[in-house]
Amino acid sequence: MTNTLNAAVDPEVLREVLDGRWAHVRRDARENLDDPDFLPVYGETMAEARERVTRAAKKLADSGRVVLGFPKEYGGQDDSGGSVTSIEMVAFNDLSIMVKTGVQWGLFGGALQLLGTKRHHDEYLRDVMSFALPGCFAMTETGHGSDVQQLRTTCTYDAATRTFDLHTPHEAARKDYIGNAAKDGRMAVVFAQLVTQGKNHGVHAWLVPIRDEQGNPMPGVTIGDDGPKAGLPGVDNGRLSFDHVSVPRDMLLDRYGQVAEDGTYTSSIENETRRFFTMLGTLVRGRVSVGGSAGSATKLALDIAVRYGEARRQFAAPGEEREIVINDYLVHQRKLLPALAKTYALHFAQGELVETMHDVQTAVHVHGQEIDEQAQRELESRAAGLKVAQTAHATQTIQMCREACGGAGYLQENRLPHLKADTDVFTTFEGDNTVLLQLVAKGLLTGYRDNFGSLDGWGRVGFVADMVRETVLERTAARALIARLVDAVPGVDDVPMLDRGWQLKMFEFREKHSLEGATRRLRKNSTTEGMAPFDMFNDVQDHVLKAAQTHIERIVLESFVAGVDRTEEPAARQLLDTLCDLYALSTIEADKAWFLEHGQLTPARAKLLTSTVNQLLRELRPHLVTLVDGFAIPDGWKAAAILVEEPARQEAMAARDAELRAQNGQSTPEGTATAVDVPPGQ
Amino acid sequence: MTNTLNAAVDPEVLREVLDGRWAHVRRDARENLDDPDFLPVYGETMAEARERVTRAAKKLADSGRVVLGFPKEYGGQDDSGGSVTSIEMVAFNDLSIMVKTGVQWGLFGGALQLLGTKRHHDEYLRDVMSFALPGCFAMTETGHGSDVQQLRTTCTYDAATRTFDLHTPHEAARKDYIGNAAKDGRMAVVFAQLVTQGKNHGVHAWLVPIRDEQGNPMPGVTIGDDGPKAGLPGVDNGRLSFDHVSVPRDMLLDRYGQVAEDGTYTSSIENETRRFFTMLGTLVRGRVSVGGSAGSATKLALDIAVRYGEARRQFAAPGEEREIVINDYLVHQRKLLPALAKTYALHFAQGELVETMHDVQTAVHVHGQEIDEQAQRELESRAAGLKVAQTAHATQTIQMCREACGGAGYLQENRLPHLKADTDVFTTFEGDNTVLLQLVAKGLLTGYRDNFGSLDGWGRVGFVADMVRETVLERTAARALIARLVDAVPGVDDVPMLDRGWQLKMFEFREKHSLEGATRRLRKNSTTEGMAPFDMFNDVQDHVLKAAQTHIERIVLESFVAGVDRTEEPAARQLLDTLCDLYALSTIEADKAWFLEHGQLTPARAKLLTSTVNQLLRELRPHLVTLVDGFAIPDGWKAAAILVEEPARQEAMAARDAELRAQNGQSTPEGTATAVDVPPGQ
Repeated sequence: MTNTLNAAVDPEVLREVLDGRWAHVRRDARENLDDPDFLPVYGETMAEARERVTRAAKKLADSGRVVLGFPKEYGGQDDSGGSVTSIEMVAFNDLSIMVKTGVQWGLFGGALQLLGTKRHHDEYLRDVMSFALPGCFAMTETGHGSDVQQLRTTCTYDAATRTFDLHTPHEAARKDYIGNAAKDGRMAVVFAQLVTQGKNHGVHAWLVPIRDEQGNPMPGVTIGDDGPKAGLPGVDNGRLSFDHVSVPRDMLLDRYGQVAEDGTYTSSIENETRRFFTMLGTLVRGRVSVGGSAGSATKLALDIAVRYGEARRQFAAPGEEREIVINDYLVHQRKLLPALAKTYALHFAQGELVETMHDVQTAVHVHGQEIDEQAQRELESRAAGLKVAQTAHATQTIQMCREACGGAGYLQENRLPHLKADTDVFTTFEGDNTVLLQLVAKGLLTGYRDNFGSLDGWGRVGFVADMVRETVLERTAARALIARLVDAVPGVDDVPMLDRGWQLKMFEFREKHSLEGATRRLRKNSTTEGMAPFDMFNDVQDHVLKAAQTHIERIVLESFVAGVDRTEEPAARQLLDTLCDLYALSTIEADKAWFLEHGQLTPARAKLLTSTVNQLLRELRPHLVTLVDGFAIPDGWKAAAILVEEPARQEAMAARDAELRAQNGQSTPEGTATAVDVPPGQ
Repeated sequence: MTNTLNAAVDPEVLREVLDGRWAHVRRDARENLDDPDFLPVYGETMAEARERVTRAAKKLADSGRVVLGFPKEYGGQDDSGGSVTSIEMVAFNDLSIMVKTGVQWGLFGGALQLLGTKRHHDEYLRDVMSFALPGCFAMTETGHGSDVQQLRTTCTYDAATRTFDLHTPHEAARKDYIGNAAKDGRMAVVFAQLVTQGKNHGVHAWLVPIRDEQGNPMPGVTIGDDGPKAGLPGVDNGRLSFDHVSVPRDMLLDRYGQVAEDGTYTSSIENETRRFFTMLGTLVRGRVSVGGSAGSATKLALDIAVRYGEARRQFAAPGEEREIVINDYLVHQRKLLPALAKTYALHFAQGELVETMHDVQTAVHVHGQEIDEQAQRELESRAAGLKVAQTAHATQTIQMCREACGGAGYLQENRLPHLKADTDVFTTFEGDNTVLLQLVAKGLLTGYRDNFGSLDGWGRVGFVADMVRETVLERTAARALIARLVDAVPGVDDVPMLDRGWQLKMFEFREKHSLEGATRRLRKNSTTEGMAPFDMFNDVQDHVLKAAQTHIERIVLESFVAGVDRTEEPAARQLLDTLCDLYALSTIEADKAWFLEHGQLTPARAKLLTSTVNQLLRELRPHLVTLVDGFAIPDGWKAAAILVEEPARQEAMAARDAELRAQNGQSTPEGTATAVDVPPGQ
């Protein structure tokens, strides 16, 4: 029980390490977005929440903090990384505002910017940026969320009238869950199958007016309301149907595909599937923003639970004067600390992702370079994978924090219910997590070859022959450092578990082995007589997703290792180093069975792993509060009554108890010690 | 991939097996509680929800379905098991109504009935039953939820005035999260330290008026509102503080402790701690009801997700005419089916618990027999353990079902958001799950000896010497059958995994080994020089909770085995038998690392376990809908729009797609097959 982390760590140093390349955007938000108008309001109606969030979005627009990603010539800053960092900071406030922001400036504005051309920019971009033109991103349809390439909405060109005819053929094809649709939206970027001269050219996007100046639906447009949701009450999600709506030819967002007056279709990208996924690929910012925002909500939940656990007493320690708070319990630490370690790990991985995204997008959209296909596909895969990891972690961790605060965690005044309900949809929007894991897996299995975005061919017999023969792990962060650490480890037994090289090697082995196993099984199925294509894939689906999952976990660990390596101040570096150990070992522990099954852990070492994790918890326990201080969340953003009230309450109670004990001349209250029975509830 | 479960199973047979001893109560509810007034309303304000739920509670009272547990002489039925079964059925409706019912007739009425004496019953019981007298159960205090024996509220007898003085010494001692307090309650059963003649006799309960006829707080009573919560908007939780409130002597609920006019204290139970836990022990019904209600919510969520997954198409199968629905995906089955198997398992365990509770309580409270201490303690332990298992399973499963329904699962109109938010508090009220697991562990470690309810002495050096020397597993269900099955298994290797005896033996070994290990480590710590008592326990806390967890899982498996054994109809029996295999094997799979570490699984058998689980999923897949049909939830209770709309929508879409394919003369839509890319969200 020796504590090897003796030095106190200055949270400011942690903050600086975490803030990274867009530190100025974060600092600016902490200083200037600390405004009660951006906080959630508890107990309001859906109508009130929608009104308030619309006002907040307008105020945010006026502050100029939402337009970093737009071109300089229209008043933006051409700063793609800054724009997602900005959204990540907004997400510490009311998440309805974050989603509204993401819809208006990320999805709607982003589609207009990246799929449209100069005439669209000139005409609409400034109004989008100022929120004078609220808009929707209308892609998802009611009947088939994930199969985007098969959208059923059609937009058919008529050369006679020089207009498109936009049409919803049946209810399953109506646009659904569309933010800004139920109340605010004036226009929508609508995705539909482009048909001209009798031929379908696949999914394209049009800018379509949906409401007139008075806010009434345009002719042929039916607008529905998704009504109350689990959370995000301030976001007006709705449904759009089009009954042969006439759309002028120049409203096609035609960067990647053009229709001439006579109906002739042209595109610089021949292959229809490739064209579609190129278009989708430009919209990667949305997925990156959701991951980052999930991270913010997770940090806030941990901040609340850690501070509460530091004040809250549960039982008096038997025969001791020492005050035991709930953070002192081993099982409480087992809940909070691995979650905190993973939150740090994901933060570093997110930071790296944002940098990559910024560099890739800047090259193409600011400097006008050709798309680097390999880089673009790796980016999309990374964005998908981290979105899965961040949102799944948020769902689990916020739930755990709510429970760690007991009854107090169930009251809206303590923020956690909103964090839980608002982020709950993150695992299934901007791509369902299970489907995104398949996307990541496909990239790994094919080496990001053609039609990466599509899973066309999963079941085809020919497909497996195309799979990469040898599994080569691509590295990103700190390549040289990581290779050196791994190479220094001779085997997997008898190596100290706190050896970073051993940890990295374990993650790497698991990923490589899972990938190779999945590949082998797919090949085998493809040569099995009478096996239907769907079954070839479905039989291995769990294995394939496991490969993707292990890939993501390795990437995240490598990012954390690189982050520690960048930290210069010795005490902070040592603390982060230990936290990285906890991330690595608790991740291995969570999948211990796999390592035992595959001979990477002996039973004796598996038990040692558990006690090593417990030892790390003891070492990190005194730094719990410092670790959440490092997130540097302004007090004004927290909006949790217990953070204000609980410490004073616990002090008063402890003082009074001590007084009574002194009066009675006893050291602990009578008949008690550590009674743990619990009340029937209310 | 052979399907050994060929026969179709009649869901009516499943229903009958599940309905058990109180089938008449369940049938009555299905037939007569199918009333829109009991359904949740989506999008209402908290004030509207509270009004509606108060009306519904009154209507429920008028129906006579809430009073089964009260004595016959006051219009009840002396049917303790019937009363909790009735609440379990109410829980398929709006859960705010269930909780309101639980507060009024379970907690408030139950305390009055079981802690009070004839004069209290004569005066108040009929009004409680009719809801003419709405009341509160005021135990929990703001500052220390789980340490009930150390409540800080005091109630001090003054012989001069022949009244008690009820007082809240500081804010941490105010009563909090109290149902019925914020709006409806007229009286409260208040728990406080009883002080008379200068001596504290521990916690007792008083019946205290909190509002006058006009609904204004009584003098000295301060009533606060907990405001909006994560869920349960129709329950008016609030806070109560008492400023030297005078309480007449005869308002003490004095079954277990009496104060004479002159202030002399008497009780038939000498030891204060034992007395307190005897009082608490009578209130076990609340915990049993929460477990049962969690089960109902889980069943409803699974019903919705399974039916949605049976209609919903995601991607067309490549090159096949076959319609693939999401229930056909292996990974989707891996989510739904083990959860469904566990839901069945818990249902059988709950049924057994209710029977035991009914028999124990009927003996004491109806037939006036002495309390059988051992039986009572085992009952409390079982109730605590199952409450943990049921509520943790509900939280996980409802979350999973929400995600399995994608965006539709996030809309309130599809019921899942309410199920999630309303049940969320179940894991921490009526006893925090972590604290309850400790209670279960203590019973196992001490053989349910003195002061079972208290964890007094966890840290004492002397305590560990008292622990049971030899770990003997108590059995409940189907003792003879289970012993026979286990004894028939020679070892743990080379036994088929579908051998029920092997499965039981694995569960049993794990429990015994965990318990023995925890005992050994506690003993070792108690002889470690300089180790503080708190640390002796805290060092082993994770191990101790593991022992409790494994105990609960064994009990649940044994109940399932007994349930299968009671099923006579061959096809249903075979289906349940396979489902029981899935429960057993997926539970072992979830803790595979433990079995590998402890030599109970070889790596090769661990891999075989995974493929055996997948094989069971394939066999059970065709019976998915039958299995939820077995829950026999009336359509009128479901209140989920997708169950009505989705099948028709999918049919229309499939028909139109087929038409287009026929027109184009191709078997699958162009350029597609199984595209799994996903839209940026809204």
